[in-house]
Amino acid sequence: MTTRIVELRQGILKKNDELARDLRQRFTGAGVLVLNLVSSPGTGKTTFLERTLRSLRESGARVAALVGDLETDNDARRLAASGAPVRQINTHGICHLEAEMVGKHLDGWDLQTLDYLFIENVGNLVCPSSYDLGERIRVALLSVTEGEDKPLKYPTLFNSADAAVITKMDLAGPCCFDREAALRNLNEIRPGIRIFETSAKTGAGMAKWLGYLAQQRAHAGV
Amino acid sequence: MTTRIVELRQGILKKNDELARDLRQRFTGAGVLVLNLVSSPGTGKTTFLERTLRSLRESGARVAALVGDLETDNDARRLAASGAPVRQINTHGICHLEAEMVGKHLDGWDLQTLDYLFIENVGNLVCPSSYDLGERIRVALLSVTEGEDKPLKYPTLFNSADAAVITKMDLAGPCCFDREAALRNLNEIRPGIRIFETSAKTGAGMAKWLGYLAQQRAHAGV
Repeated sequence: MTTRIVELRQGILKKNDELARDLRQRFTGAGVLVLNLVSSPGTGKTTFLERTLRSLRESGARVAALVGDLETDNDARRLAASGAPVRQINTHGICHLEAEMVGKHLDGWDLQTLDYLFIENVGNLVCPSSYDLGERIRVALLSVTEGEDKPLKYPTLFNSADAAVITKMDLAGPCCFDREAALRNLNEIRPGIRIFETSAKTGAGMAKWLGYLAQQRAHAGV
Repeated sequence: MTTRIVELRQGILKKNDELARDLRQRFTGAGVLVLNLVSSPGTGKTTFLERTLRSLRESGARVAALVGDLETDNDARRLAASGAPVRQINTHGICHLEAEMVGKHLDGWDLQTLDYLFIENVGNLVCPSSYDLGERIRVALLSVTEGEDKPLKYPTLFNSADAAVITKMDLAGPCCFDREAALRNLNEIRPGIRIFETSAKTGAGMAKWLGYLAQQRAHAGV
């Protein structure tokens, strides 16, 4: 039975990879920089993204977001408060987003009018790893509240990321966050990964993160 | 392809259910109360369990633990500091524990000599829901740092739980934790669920939790 499952899984991933490749071409053609945000549930992806969308809009950038959850449209409603166009993808039991879901939820959006598209994945440190969504940058988030050894315990998610964002730095003190250990573990799994230490509450580290986004847009030539 | 996957999945779950039923009979026969702890990664399962094991041992109870992670034996080493027998289950990419893994890791343990066996599942709010491990009590943990709407966003995990433990209550202030919302959401998904508000750091709520464990052992007649 295991062999049949592995074969089916490979078939699904192959199909996903093909759809993701098409999406990537479409995104590049339209000149939109696409980011896929992955993390554990409760890391603060939505709050971090809310602040990012707001700041980008204030700077004149054109942004949109897709947000994945098993159930509820709570996160889409929170993100929409930023004024950006936002769509919720409910996966109803599936623990990750797939390229096909992303493609379907782009219907009617003119990608040419966007500078940045953020995809907030389902909160999960395992399932999203294998599913390419056509993004240019995969961002793994890790909060100071959830343990410095997460990169070692979930290597596949962290070693497939292009950048890491440490969130909730305002809680580092009360949580006795061991910053050195976190940085060391991230670098062990993904040597040289770009790391941003942020607090969406206080705004700490956000300027550096926004600078990185602008730079990536410029470098990517999109 | 979806139909074939659903059929295969049902086959796997059916086999797991059968193995879990056998385990449950074995646990009941041996007189050991078995609990399955599920939560997001970073909720603080290990710290909570460490304190629980220590307190139970101090009160003379005979305890042991199995702990699931994709990689590393960090958690087993942390838990073993309590003095209790502990075994690590590495799932290598699988996002939940299965009854078969539990069965294999019991080899050589005399269950008759135990009062409590704790199974700390892989940190994940989706995958562990469907896998019965033969436990008598499933405990869903939720930390004050990860958002009060988690029960609504991951209903399957929370509505299959017999008890809920809110962890890291010492951080409720800095996190602006909305206690009423959390309790309301838990009750919406699982009406009447027993809820424990705890801090493994300060010890708050631990006495009530330990009282519940003793009561469950007595009621279960194990």
